[in-house]
Formats: sequence, structure tokens, C-alpha cells
Amino acid sequence: MERTAGARKRMMKMERKSSMASSYSLTPKEDIIKLAKNVLEQIEKLENPDIKLPIRTLSNIYFDEKQNLIRLGGKMSHRTYLNVAHTRKFMQTLMVAAECKKIIDQGVTISIRDLYYALKRTIPETKENTFEEQEESDPILEDLEAALNTLRERLHLKADRKGYLAGPLMINDSGDEIDASRMGSSGWAIPSNVEPEIIKLDSHADFVLVVEKDAVWQRLNEDKFWRKHNCIIITGKGQPDRGTRRIVNRLHTEFKLPVYVLTDADAWGYYIYSVIKQGSINLSFLSDRLGTPQAKFIGLTTQDVKKYNIASNVTIKLNQGDIKRTHEMLNYVWFKPREWQQELKHMLEVGYKLELEALSSKSIRFISETYLPDKIAKKDFLP
Amino acid sequence: MERTAGARKRMMKMERKSSMASSYSLTPKEDIIKLAKNVLEQIEKLENPDIKLPIRTLSNIYFDEKQNLIRLGGKMSHRTYLNVAHTRKFMQTLMVAAECKKIIDQGVTISIRDLYYALKRTIPETKENTFEEQEESDPILEDLEAALNTLRERLHLKADRKGYLAGPLMINDSGDEIDASRMGSSGWAIPSNVEPEIIKLDSHADFVLVVEKDAVWQRLNEDKFWRKHNCIIITGKGQPDRGTRRIVNRLHTEFKLPVYVLTDADAWGYYIYSVIKQGSINLSFLSDRLGTPQAKFIGLTTQDVKKYNIASNVTIKLNQGDIKRTHEMLNYVWFKPREWQQELKHMLEVGYKLELEALSSKSIRFISETYLPDKIAKKDFLP
Repeated sequence: MERTAGARKRMMKMERKSSMASSYSLTPKEDIIKLAKNVLEQIEKLENPDIKLPIRTLSNIYFDEKQNLIRLGGKMSHRTYLNVAHTRKFMQTLMVAAECKKIIDQGVTISIRDLYYALKRTIPETKENTFEEQEESDPILEDLEAALNTLRERLHLKADRKGYLAGPLMINDSGDEIDASRMGSSGWAIPSNVEPEIIKLDSHADFVLVVEKDAVWQRLNEDKFWRKHNCIIITGKGQPDRGTRRIVNRLHTEFKLPVYVLTDADAWGYYIYSVIKQGSINLSFLSDRLGTPQAKFIGLTTQDVKKYNIASNVTIKLNQGDIKRTHEMLNYVWFKPREWQQELKHMLEVGYKLELEALSSKSIRFISETYLPDKIAKKDFLP
Repeated sequence: MERTAGARKRMMKMERKSSMASSYSLTPKEDIIKLAKNVLEQIEKLENPDIKLPIRTLSNIYFDEKQNLIRLGGKMSHRTYLNVAHTRKFMQTLMVAAECKKIIDQGVTISIRDLYYALKRTIPETKENTFEEQEESDPILEDLEAALNTLRERLHLKADRKGYLAGPLMINDSGDEIDASRMGSSGWAIPSNVEPEIIKLDSHADFVLVVEKDAVWQRLNEDKFWRKHNCIIITGKGQPDRGTRRIVNRLHTEFKLPVYVLTDADAWGYYIYSVIKQGSINLSFLSDRLGTPQAKFIGLTTQDVKKYNIASNVTIKLNQGDIKRTHEMLNYVWFKPREWQQELKHMLEVGYKLELEALSSKSIRFISETYLPDKIAKKDFLP
């Protein structure tokens, strides 16, 4: 597998494309240095050292109806050194920032568990530990991400990964060229850090199909659905990890690919869709990098049962939790569009939900040969 | 990426190697037909149709000390049609067998959830369903695997997959050639079906390192540990799935590679090691295909704390559950070797366990640059 002239040309094109995806004014290292310099200047002026952090509670989160994204508002909190309630967290924030700078300098990527262990120590001449549990270091890292308006991946920290994709997509990962249409039965494993600095992409696909379940993804991959429909198929194995959401966002942003999402017809599936589309409350400060507001919902819906004549004995009766959750969802801003109100009310009315595998009761290839092509041809999507 | 003469030659070599790994006299389809013919003959002779199944409870499981594997014994049970307690399961067994033959004929692979949905129906003119829950179809499939002495993967059923590997290994997956030393930060995602009929392998590695945690695998991959030590690094993300265990088994069987296992120093980590090595009670009928009795344990042990001068504040106090579990393990046949008895007793004595990430407290690259090379050089393994 030598590098050919074609591969070099492709690489240059990927570089150009990928540069569109990064819109940061400073590198993460420069961001950390700036934060540290601020603290230092305050100390030199004999001021109380103070780090400004965006408030990440519900009170500062709103739905941006123009962009269709869950966003973090502008309210800031202060973490000051000379406040006994803040001192410990102030120290921890600087420790986490310093460790991030260190690993960036060393060119290594670590997990959030490593971060905790790397920073856990007993403060000399005391019995006090810098961190007691990982539950202490995790939120500090999120504070730092929000304060620096960056992704932890850019700070060289990796999150869990569990996504796969296949289709007409060329990937260049630190020099290794990977062809996602030649990855056999497994597909390309989506890494946790898919930032454009590391992962360059090139694709001529027509659309992206995100599938909730790996078993369904494997069905589509085995049937070479992506080849027949010139698309990229992606699964996040349930609620997608950050890397998977970011790849969906990049494929849409860089290649203008329409994104369709396929989940079970239940509250959990619809929630997964909403997170892919407009981001989540927890990571609201990252919505513009992890969310894809133009995504559309291709199915499954409870209304499909009649449309596709699905046997009633493969539907599942809603339980009390499902009913409560569906009522809640009826009130979410992002489920306000008429079509979603109709679907959620229909679900309550018929009193059942159903899984993607229920389509196997028609025939094993029904999903890839009939259901999906039909939905796409008719543009039968929910917004 | 054209197929070169080199690639064709490699493919032929893989074919030869892989044929060593399959030692079945009949194809799974022939096995199913044989089972069905037996039933048919009994009916024609007006006998009570009867399917013989290996008993899969503890009473029929033993530890094969010669092979070092957990094995299923020879005791058989009878599932007969004209026994009211068996009739439903008898029907279900034939339905599952028929569906397996059907998907083999169609050349499709499905999940066990698909299998359940494909077979769930209401028996005409009754209110009886063939299957009520997946909990009914799963054990029937295991019965069939045991009765036919085969893997579900050979019956075209796929299990969950979650493993990754990287290193000097060429993979041919249904014609796609994958170089596991050119897979960037993600590695090759191990599919659920890695049987030699589909996945051909070729490797010149010196050994295999199986790592419990993906975060540690990523550390080793980023440090190109596999390149420096000419090895294959594999993770099963916790307790490895069937595909991952089978790949470890195949790498050992086909290429005579030594296998080293790296887990946390706790009862759960030691259990993971034991499953990789001698198989599990649940899947005892598959031990010779999923287990690797020659595997060795490279670490972590509680004795490493002193050896490598690991700070005491990154160890974790044993809880009541840990202590109980460790006492149980002291009595397992496969933990009887002197070195394991010593380690388990040492754990109880010092009263702590520790995670692989605890090594990060020394330095981020301590595990890849000091700990593992040192262990390998000194052959400091547990049996």
C-alpha cells in the first residue's frame, strides 16, 4: 500500500476541507497559558485570584430557535482563591489546566481516569489529597472545556468510543490512509478524538444514515446498503459517544451531506435523535460542534406499523415510565413541530412502542430493501 | 489500492493457514439437515420424536486438567415431542434450527434479537405465540450450538462486538484487505464473526498482548508499543466478547504466538484472565475455540505495588464483596497454582486492589516504557 500521487492529492484536498472545520482563534495550549497568565497578573497586583467560568446549570441553558440548538447562555460565575468554599476547586482547576498543558507538550492523549490518577497526590505535610475521587476531577475538566470554549479532545483527553461507520469515505488518521468502503464486516472504528487536526476526511457520499443499533448497522453493512445508495452508515451503539456525534457534525458541515437518523420507535430512540440534532443539556457548551440541527428523522415511528403492515404481536405495550416520558417530551420545545406532536400523541393513543428488529418479522432484508429506500424516495421524514 | 501479486500470494497463504483452524467434519447446514432427518425418521417409524442435547448445567461441567480448559461432560438429556413439559421447547428447537438453515441459505447474518423477532408469531387458530420473549429463544440457540458442537457464528448469528486490535497483522475480510498496522488511532474493530471461512489472518508478530481496558489499549497504540515490540495489542473492553476471545485463540493456534494478559489487579480482572485462558462455565461447550490455555498473566498484581514503588494513595481498599470473591477464587482449580495462591493471599493481606490507570501516577508512559518491557524481559508472569 504505497502512497501514490492520487493519495497525496487526496490528502491535500482533505487538509483544505478539514481546515474549514476548525474555527478557533487560539490553540488550546495558548488558551491555557492565557488563563494562567490572568491568574498570575492578579497575584502580582495583589488581587484575589479569580477564574471566570460559564454557569452550566439549567438556569443558564436555552434553546436557540434560530440555530435549532441547545445552548449555554452568557451567565458567568467566579471561582476565587481567597474564598474557603472555592479554594480547593480553584487549586484543582489550575492543576487540571497545568496537566493538560503538560500532555499537549508531551504529545500524549490520556483518559479522564488517567487524569485523575496523574493528579491524585497527598499535599506535602498534610493528610489532604488533591483529589479524592474521579467524580471530583471530571466536572473540573468540563468547567475548563466551557471556560476555554473548547473540546476536551483538543486538550488531549479522550472520551469513551464505541461508534462504527462504513461507506464512500476516505480517512487520513495521522498519516494512515483508511478507506471506509474496504473495511469488511467491521467498518471503521470511530476514535474518540476526530478533530480536524488529526482526522482528515474526504467523501463523495450523497447522505449520512445514523443508526441507533449496531445489529441494524451490521445488517445494512452486510447488504452493502451504503454502496447501493452511495451513503455513509454510522452507528453509535445506543446514545452516540462524542466522537460519533462530532463525525456526523463534520460530515454535514464539511460535505453538506443530509443526515438521516434511524432509531427504535420509543422515547429513548426519539431522545437519541434529539441529542444528535440539537445537542444535550449536559454538553450544551459544545452543541455547535456536536449537534447537527439539519438532521432529519427517518424512522421508526408508531405510525409505520400501519403504513408497512407490521404484525401487532411484535409491538411492545408502553409501560408507566414510557407514558410519563412521552408526556414530558410533548412539552419539549424541540418536539413542538406538528409532525412530532402527532407522532407522540399517536404513540400514547395506540399504547405501544416498537424496536427496529421488529421489521425482521416481515423479512430479514425488509429494512434495507423496502423500508429505508421507500422512506427516502417519499422523503417521509420527521423534522 | 489495487490487488497486487503480493496481495494474491498473501491471500493464498492465509487460506492455507486458516484452513488449519476449522476442524469440523460437517458444515453447519449439513449438521442441521442431519438433526432434522433424525426427527423425520423417528416420525416415520411412529416413534416419539426425540432430540438429544448435552446437559449444560454445573453437574455436567468439569475442569480438564490436561488441556487446562473448562469443559462440558458427556451427559445428555432428551427433548421429546410427546412430553407435555417438552413439547413447546421441542417445537422451538426445530423452529430455531429451520431459521438457521434459512439464513445460511440466504447468505445473511442476523442478531439473536432478529432471530427472536423473525420467529415470533401467533400459532394459527390459537392465542399461543411461538415465542413470548427473547429469553425463550436465546437458550434454545445455545442448546443448538451445543447439540451441533458448533459456534453460533457458523450458524450465521452474530453476538455483540466491542474489541479492537492493532499491530503487524494482515486481515482479509470477505475480500477486503486490512492492514492492522495502518489503522491510525482506532485499530481494527474485531467483528463478531471471525471464523476462518470469513476472516483470514497473516501475521509475523512475536506475541499477543490482551489488555482489559480500552483506555490502556489507546495509550499503548499511541505509543506504538506494538511496533517497538513487534506484537499485536488487543482489547475486549472489559470482559471480552466472543469474537475477541476467538481471535486470541486463533492467533495462538495458527501462529503459535504467546499470549499475555494485562488487567486491573482485582478479582474482576483476574476473572477476565481466567475466562480468556480456560473458558467460562456458561460457554463450556466452546472452550476449545474460545479459550487459550497457554495464556500467561503479565499483570497488574498487588505485588507490583512494592516492585514498582507505586504510591499507596492510588491503591483502593478492598470492600466486603472483593474479600468474599477473593476467598472464593482461592478455591478454584484454575487458581490453584502456587503463584496465584500467593497473589490472592497477598491481596487479602495488604487489603487493597488497584487499577491499571494507577500506573499513570508514576508517569503517563510508565506502562508502555517501563512496566511492560520490564515484565516481559524478566518473564515475570503468573501461570
